[in-house]
Amino acid sequence: MMRGYLAILLSLSLLSAQQSTAPAIAGFTPDGAKTQLDLESRYEAALNRQNLQQWMKRMAAKPHHVGSPGSKEVAEFMAAQFKSWGYETTIETYYPLFPTPKTRLLEMIAPEKYVAKIEEPAVEGDETSGIKAGNLPLYNAYSTDGDVTGDLVYVNYGLPADYERLKQMGIDVKGKIVLARYGGSWRGIKPKVAAENGAIGCLIYSDPRDDGYGAGDVYPKGAYRPQFSAQRGSVMDMPVYPGDPLTPGKGATDAKRPADPKQASTVTKIPVMPISYGDAEPMLRALGGPVAPVEWRGGLPLTYHVGPGSTKVHLKLEFDWKLAPAYNVIAKMKGSEKPDQWIIRGNHHDGWNFGAHDPLSGMVSVMEEARAIGELAKTGWKPKRTLVFAGWDGEEPALLGSTEWAEHHADELRRHAVAYINSDGTGRGFVGMSGSAALEVFAAQTARDVTDPQTRVSAMERANARRRASGRPAEYRIDPLGSGSDYTVFQHHLGIPSLNIGFGGEGGGGVYHSNYDSYDHFVRFIDPDFQYVMATAKLGGRMMLRMANADTLPFRFDAMSRSVRGWTSEVIKLADDMREQTKKENELIRSGALKLAADPTRPFIAPEPKAEVPFLNFAPLLNAVSRLEAATAKVSAAKNVDDAALLRAEQHLTQADGLPRRPWFKHVLHAPGFYTGYGVKTLPGVREAIEQRQWQEAEQQIARLAESLNGYTRVLEQAIR
Amino acid sequence: MMRGYLAILLSLSLLSAQQSTAPAIAGFTPDGAKTQLDLESRYEAALNRQNLQQWMKRMAAKPHHVGSPGSKEVAEFMAAQFKSWGYETTIETYYPLFPTPKTRLLEMIAPEKYVAKIEEPAVEGDETSGIKAGNLPLYNAYSTDGDVTGDLVYVNYGLPADYERLKQMGIDVKGKIVLARYGGSWRGIKPKVAAENGAIGCLIYSDPRDDGYGAGDVYPKGAYRPQFSAQRGSVMDMPVYPGDPLTPGKGATDAKRPADPKQASTVTKIPVMPISYGDAEPMLRALGGPVAPVEWRGGLPLTYHVGPGSTKVHLKLEFDWKLAPAYNVIAKMKGSEKPDQWIIRGNHHDGWNFGAHDPLSGMVSVMEEARAIGELAKTGWKPKRTLVFAGWDGEEPALLGSTEWAEHHADELRRHAVAYINSDGTGRGFVGMSGSAALEVFAAQTARDVTDPQTRVSAMERANARRRASGRPAEYRIDPLGSGSDYTVFQHHLGIPSLNIGFGGEGGGGVYHSNYDSYDHFVRFIDPDFQYVMATAKLGGRMMLRMANADTLPFRFDAMSRSVRGWTSEVIKLADDMREQTKKENELIRSGALKLAADPTRPFIAPEPKAEVPFLNFAPLLNAVSRLEAATAKVSAAKNVDDAALLRAEQHLTQADGLPRRPWFKHVLHAPGFYTGYGVKTLPGVREAIEQRQWQEAEQQIARLAESLNGYTRVLEQAIR
Repeated sequence: MMRGYLAILLSLSLLSAQQSTAPAIAGFTPDGAKTQLDLESRYEAALNRQNLQQWMKRMAAKPHHVGSPGSKEVAEFMAAQFKSWGYETTIETYYPLFPTPKTRLLEMIAPEKYVAKIEEPAVEGDETSGIKAGNLPLYNAYSTDGDVTGDLVYVNYGLPADYERLKQMGIDVKGKIVLARYGGSWRGIKPKVAAENGAIGCLIYSDPRDDGYGAGDVYPKGAYRPQFSAQRGSVMDMPVYPGDPLTPGKGATDAKRPADPKQASTVTKIPVMPISYGDAEPMLRALGGPVAPVEWRGGLPLTYHVGPGSTKVHLKLEFDWKLAPAYNVIAKMKGSEKPDQWIIRGNHHDGWNFGAHDPLSGMVSVMEEARAIGELAKTGWKPKRTLVFAGWDGEEPALLGSTEWAEHHADELRRHAVAYINSDGTGRGFVGMSGSAALEVFAAQTARDVTDPQTRVSAMERANARRRASGRPAEYRIDPLGSGSDYTVFQHHLGIPSLNIGFGGEGGGGVYHSNYDSYDHFVRFIDPDFQYVMATAKLGGRMMLRMANADTLPFRFDAMSRSVRGWTSEVIKLADDMREQTKKENELIRSGALKLAADPTRPFIAPEPKAEVPFLNFAPLLNAVSRLEAATAKVSAAKNVDDAALLRAEQHLTQADGLPRRPWFKHVLHAPGFYTGYGVKTLPGVREAIEQRQWQEAEQQIARLAESLNGYTRVLEQAIR
Repeated sequence: MMRGYLAILLSLSLLSAQQSTAPAIAGFTPDGAKTQLDLESRYEAALNRQNLQQWMKRMAAKPHHVGSPGSKEVAEFMAAQFKSWGYETTIETYYPLFPTPKTRLLEMIAPEKYVAKIEEPAVEGDETSGIKAGNLPLYNAYSTDGDVTGDLVYVNYGLPADYERLKQMGIDVKGKIVLARYGGSWRGIKPKVAAENGAIGCLIYSDPRDDGYGAGDVYPKGAYRPQFSAQRGSVMDMPVYPGDPLTPGKGATDAKRPADPKQASTVTKIPVMPISYGDAEPMLRALGGPVAPVEWRGGLPLTYHVGPGSTKVHLKLEFDWKLAPAYNVIAKMKGSEKPDQWIIRGNHHDGWNFGAHDPLSGMVSVMEEARAIGELAKTGWKPKRTLVFAGWDGEEPALLGSTEWAEHHADELRRHAVAYINSDGTGRGFVGMSGSAALEVFAAQTARDVTDPQTRVSAMERANARRRASGRPAEYRIDPLGSGSDYTVFQHHLGIPSLNIGFGGEGGGGVYHSNYDSYDHFVRFIDPDFQYVMATAKLGGRMMLRMANADTLPFRFDAMSRSVRGWTSEVIKLADDMREQTKKENELIRSGALKLAADPTRPFIAPEPKAEVPFLNFAPLLNAVSRLEAATAKVSAAKNVDDAALLRAEQHLTQADGLPRRPWFKHVLHAPGFYTGYGVKTLPGVREAIEQRQWQEAEQQIARLAESLNGYTRVLEQAIR
């Protein structure tokens, strides 16, 4: 009897093992999942690696930043391709403000003369590095015009804490020009904080410890940044709002408006320019004043001083402020069953000059996805929902193309957009996927079904192995989105569940936003045989096909309540830790211990004691989180959930008037940091109020956040039939 | 009534406040403490800063390493001084083996030729830096002779973990020459571990990140190591035993023995030489092979590779192996009441050439202490116990003078020595005092009574302020001694409670063991007006006077049981953490996750799984600690304790046959680390057995340690009358 019973058990478990060989896919029945996986296999078989390589080579052959003839050519080439694959394709053009340099002068005038090169020389073996025509020189977009002369001060990363440190050393940057190194935050934070502290100009250089020979052999011997390369990039105050600085919240459709930077609150207050470590070295070497704190020192062969000493610098910048046409390529394939539900896939096509890795590696992946899906469609298959493929222009200066398009189409998007799936540069290594917690299961299941080209295990398994090897939890946990690519308007402004996907982490590379981000560099160092661009296409295409074909929307909410619970605990701990820390620091200041511990031969100004940190009323938030947890558990257990109700659920996590001092950012769960830039701040209204010691605002934000969470919870509750 | 009561309370508290204005001193009655503090004030008043400056200038005027004419002159000068101050003074000479270089050749022979300079050039403004006569060139003492040619491999700090990492990268150093950077351990560990791994030669260079321009402006502009300076120093295997390699445990009194390095087990197995970063740079630049791991990279302006590539190096070293006379200056002042109880104060007088900071700043302090005490003695005052002042020779090569003297006088010292108080180089900043836990209260009370010259608060208060400012507990907690100066034989071999005292932490300095450790450097950067040498003299002299005059011995044992309890918890946690860690790592290896997380385009050899960590029987140790705690609590509470019984108490913490594989080190509570060198290992028998995964030995060592602790506890118990 026992034997027979065991045998039955055994056969049952074998049966279930067989059944489970077709892995589950959220939104599909077991049978539907099988059919879907067959479709996806056909999709993968249709992908062609040669296209990726040929398109990248073609599109990276000349500078193609927004407003350039190269960008127009690229957009027209892409549009023609999408059309040929069967998509309804348009080029939607917007006209944001976009400055290009007219005058760039940087010279050290004391203690000796040095005129900065601010040019990236041609490099042997890199075909495009010598192209001058149409080449955008080294500059930071949306720096204000300026002609300033002043003492130079080295400010480390140029973050608020660095200026605190300078104050303790008795150094004031008022009326001076600051030299900051790249890193520690998004670059646009540096001139913003410098101006807040009274500086009149800002230089940002790439220190070779992190971004040069200290990271690896420099180009062309290796993949890393050579001596006279620097990092272009936007310094617009994008944590306030991205996109055209003249039309926040609206599409910049009018090409004839005045292009007046004075009307643009997100343009920097002081002139700012990126420089190479080759140009920074003579200035750093000339700096006097105290030796920089240990953590401030970089990889140049000199003793880092803070300044000012006798080092005087002259910086002159003039820009051509124009409205530039941004060409967004929009290609649609109408859904057969639910044409009003749109799945959007995007990547930008503009580059800082050649932009092979950033953005073309991702862009050609999106194109090949569209092409292969177009082939499937030619065999009679149709997606149930509508597919939208987008190639954005002007991402580099300020997410211009995507922001203007999404602002312009905001109402439609709020009604129709199911999800936005973004990519940008992609390369060899490990799959990375960030985004809305509602998409965690969806992302994990898709990456599970893509094979890592080097190891032949699942891409998800390999990424999880890396997580485990570095001591983190083995399981994939989705990280929320900050900013830095085109998902920003979708996720943070409109509340459309978004993902950002790609591969990377191997092969290295240090030519970010330089002339050397070229086809030649890419095929030597980033992804020589386009295996990982191919893997990105497999991942992105499978996502599109699943999202388009699912019987029910593949949103899963357990990760959402788990995340919100975790972030809530974090902000409570943040306040508690600040309370303890403030108490300790005040005691050290008031007792004089801080002063006694300092070297009396060096200037030291002890900071003022800070106001004690009060206890905050987190109860509304904690109650809201408990209710959310109960609701998500119910949704998970429910047999039948109303898809239509869920479609717009995440929009309930946005607030019409947005975050304090930056109404464009409307999502209550995450935003780029006001003082970190790209880096995400979760529960940003509450968290940043605490960080900035705005206790009243913190209490208000807790209440508002709780309200939004309750609204979202109600939608989930009502979706259960 | 209430008012009156309060008034009484108030007057009582005023009274007790007045009484407490004479601070307590361990070993003295309240009245005795007053008298003692008066004496100490007179002592401080007798100190003369000019002596410090003049003696340093004189003694640092020429090279004075062991065996040199300079050393003899210094010893004779000191002896004459001590005599003139009223001390019975002798020069006790020993004859340890001491090699000096005959041939030093280092050249890179491929991929291109570079002959290393291995010379420190004269420097402007440094009078002695040009002196060639008698100058000891750059070399590591007790390197073996050798003439080797081989591929070069960069091994980071050259510690066991670094070779593990190299193995994972597929790199073997067998038959190769390794290039290690200074840091991470005492230098002598590097050639030892290199030889264990099969290397045939070892170069050690000073990387400019920590020891050069990365630390501060280089000499003569600033205090730090210039391009062609390197760090001399011993590489003898001193964690096995220090002193004459031919006479472990015995005084090297015979000048006529054969000087055969082959009989010396502590001489290195492979030739080793220190080089400057100027000399290291061309070799590091030439290295091929993989890029070094991030943590391995230093401050040179190049990409650090591991090698080997095609870089070949030729190293030829020949030494003149001789018995060198080591002149110890021993000055005694007999005690009036307890002449058989000796308080010993020492500092070495030999330097790597000029040695102004190391050791003369400490040596002149000891001299001035003796002189001022001699003056007090001329007024009729006499110490109750015998004072011994020692100037050791040959500390730099291997603690030669102190070790041979103490080995030679071991029986007397075991009978008579109450405590040994050591100093070495001293400078501007914070008081530092390490040593036997029995002396924690004594040390803290003495430093409490010395004024910090810059801030005019107590030296103890200032050091405690620094501790608090860096987030550590506010109260002074004595750290145990490792090795690196002349206390070693007293504390670790003989079990005599020892202290190592000095000031430092400000002013910086990067001329350690170089030609630039000169008078000129010292007065510019280390302690310009000898304020802190003076403070050292105040501290050391007060310690001598207190220890000499105390009614009862000032040992206090609460810190001892607290320390042992803390170390016991540490070793238990060490085993527990290793168990968890081993389990995790084995799982990562066996599951293949480690391999999956690695970049397949680079060599990666996953380590073998390790044996699981068993649970060890810590019960005997835990029981012994509880008994010790009970006993120290009783001693603290006791009215009357037998001094004679306590005099030799700490010797019960030594074991006749010492630690495994190094019987010379006899103390069970601490020793320099077998694989770290100077750095202390507490409960070394147990801790190192666990670290080396010798589980059986760990259990044996736990039992032995418990026995010793029980023996010590019995002495304390019996001392209570």
